[in-house]
Amino acid sequence: MGGDHGPEVILAGAQIALERHPEMRFILFGQEDVVRPVLARLPKLAARSVFHHCPVSVRMDDKPSQALRQGRHKSSMWKAIEAVKTGEADVAVSAGNTGALMAMAKFCLRTMANIERPAIAAIWPTLRGESIVLDVGATIGADSQQLIDFSVMGAAMARALFHIERPTVGLLNIGVEEVKGQDEVKEAGRLLKETPIAGLDYRGFVEGTDLGKGTVDVVVTEGFTGNIALKTAEGTAKQIASYLRAAMTRTWMAKIGYLFAKSAFDRLRDKMDPNKVNGGVFLGLNGVVIKSHGSADAEGTAAAIDVAHAMAANGLLAKIEADFGQVYTQVAPVTDAGELEASEPKEALQ
Amino acid sequence: MGGDHGPEVILAGAQIALERHPEMRFILFGQEDVVRPVLARLPKLAARSVFHHCPVSVRMDDKPSQALRQGRHKSSMWKAIEAVKTGEADVAVSAGNTGALMAMAKFCLRTMANIERPAIAAIWPTLRGESIVLDVGATIGADSQQLIDFSVMGAAMARALFHIERPTVGLLNIGVEEVKGQDEVKEAGRLLKETPIAGLDYRGFVEGTDLGKGTVDVVVTEGFTGNIALKTAEGTAKQIASYLRAAMTRTWMAKIGYLFAKSAFDRLRDKMDPNKVNGGVFLGLNGVVIKSHGSADAEGTAAAIDVAHAMAANGLLAKIEADFGQVYTQVAPVTDAGELEASEPKEALQ
Repeated sequence: MGGDHGPEVILAGAQIALERHPEMRFILFGQEDVVRPVLARLPKLAARSVFHHCPVSVRMDDKPSQALRQGRHKSSMWKAIEAVKTGEADVAVSAGNTGALMAMAKFCLRTMANIERPAIAAIWPTLRGESIVLDVGATIGADSQQLIDFSVMGAAMARALFHIERPTVGLLNIGVEEVKGQDEVKEAGRLLKETPIAGLDYRGFVEGTDLGKGTVDVVVTEGFTGNIALKTAEGTAKQIASYLRAAMTRTWMAKIGYLFAKSAFDRLRDKMDPNKVNGGVFLGLNGVVIKSHGSADAEGTAAAIDVAHAMAANGLLAKIEADFGQVYTQVAPVTDAGELEASEPKEALQ
Repeated sequence: MGGDHGPEVILAGAQIALERHPEMRFILFGQEDVVRPVLARLPKLAARSVFHHCPVSVRMDDKPSQALRQGRHKSSMWKAIEAVKTGEADVAVSAGNTGALMAMAKFCLRTMANIERPAIAAIWPTLRGESIVLDVGATIGADSQQLIDFSVMGAAMARALFHIERPTVGLLNIGVEEVKGQDEVKEAGRLLKETPIAGLDYRGFVEGTDLGKGTVDVVVTEGFTGNIALKTAEGTAKQIASYLRAAMTRTWMAKIGYLFAKSAFDRLRDKMDPNKVNGGVFLGLNGVVIKSHGSADAEGTAAAIDVAHAMAANGLLAKIEADFGQVYTQVAPVTDAGELEASEPKEALQ
């Protein structure tokens, strides 16, 4: 029921994703009078779906507390998350209200053992391919232990999504040395260097410019900065696309040039299309929930469902649990340098 | 002596700026054997310059404390800042080590009365023109009062640079409501709404996407987030430029299209050229210091000197002082609603 376009686009996206992963099955939650007619026009999807009517829908502008109060146990958003809890579903996907989705997911699924705070991980297109950036706004502020938790969870997600055995991890920081504050980042960096974690390759601090370069597979930061960085990049991409459009329509020569280079521009648009890398993954909960961008079209929705598929098929939760088991049992033998020598961390980038 | 290219580019930039502002005079500080030969090839600049030999140069990788220890009272960087203190110069421009420059500027010029922390303000190209974003990395973290100080200083700079009588100001925040933390931003927002400041038009919270849109003239945030946002935008612009280059050289059709649209691409490159909007302004000190980007070429250096010229010619310091005088004497009559009614602030954007 969520997103800027509602069930029309969500279901069309599900049908596209189904074509790519024919083994998938859907449990759909929403308002009967709105969803049924759309589903009737998508017979392939209907054949692989079960539909549950939910009388309440969370609105895009509901505050999380309001959504919880009005929608717990009965809204389509809650029911989708609950299906993950009961094991009926492997993963929940929603294009709805992010704050409400996180509040309900936390309330229903609870955070994993040892984890204090969940995070939202974004998939970030880079010059090298894709990276994972977290937290992009689940909570504000994070202490050093939470930043390490984010590192472990992000690495597990990179393993599940990119099939990299030991993803590289960087902590987002600013270049100026000897600047006071942000001690959590420095402390997390020190701990990650001193105590290598088998499942990730810690590469030290990275800066804002490293996000687009794809310097590391996983960029870790607290949610305020991560959210600002994500939206700044989005805004910059839109700004440049707007400059480009204006430049290409300004003169006849430019318009002719545009026609010749049209397929190149189409490729570029494809590269810059935020739809292509859609899907914010909620990490740290006892279940996987994916947030699709509210403005995503059918292709974008399909991309988020692809991510959901990858997370379920590659056992994201089991990977996170295994890594945390390793981290939290490793704390004791850390002082025994011999055992850890083999996985000595690389020098910090700066 | 600073920057990636040294005096060659700095002096060439100064000569370009001089052509635009023939009334300008330069006091140059540096090492004689390096600067003199370059200056000899630029007779117009030489005619409007005084040169002072300085035996010590701050290196780009010196730590601020190290630079202060070794370069205080004798480095070219110190001498340039000192010339502002003594009134010999109106403004100092350096392409050197940012951390060292800020440390020396603070040490030599001291912060203004009532101001606890200086800020670095960046000029941000937007779809609407240009905005000012601060702090982009002078210090990490800022309490609500410091965010208000940044708002006042940023507005004064906008007035000096853009000639807008009452610049619009927004506080950078994330969209998710009811998220805990970042109380300083909320508190600053509350204060700015409750106590209108004559010199600025507070518009509420803005998000990362608003930076590129140019929603407000002045975007205020603490230095860690500001620095990450600035570098993320820089990185994203480079990333898209790289996609564009790749797309335009991939096929013969695209290459022909590129030739037709070449002047359009040149305009675009111009728009995206970080050189065009160069110059980080140090605000909150008893003197104006401008940081030119280390990688700036001669045109970029000239752009930073243009900013320096505007700051000096339009009396930035006097504007800041006047605004602070107003803010800090206004604290008393604030409870008298009648007097302030006329300048009731606009509703927050969100």
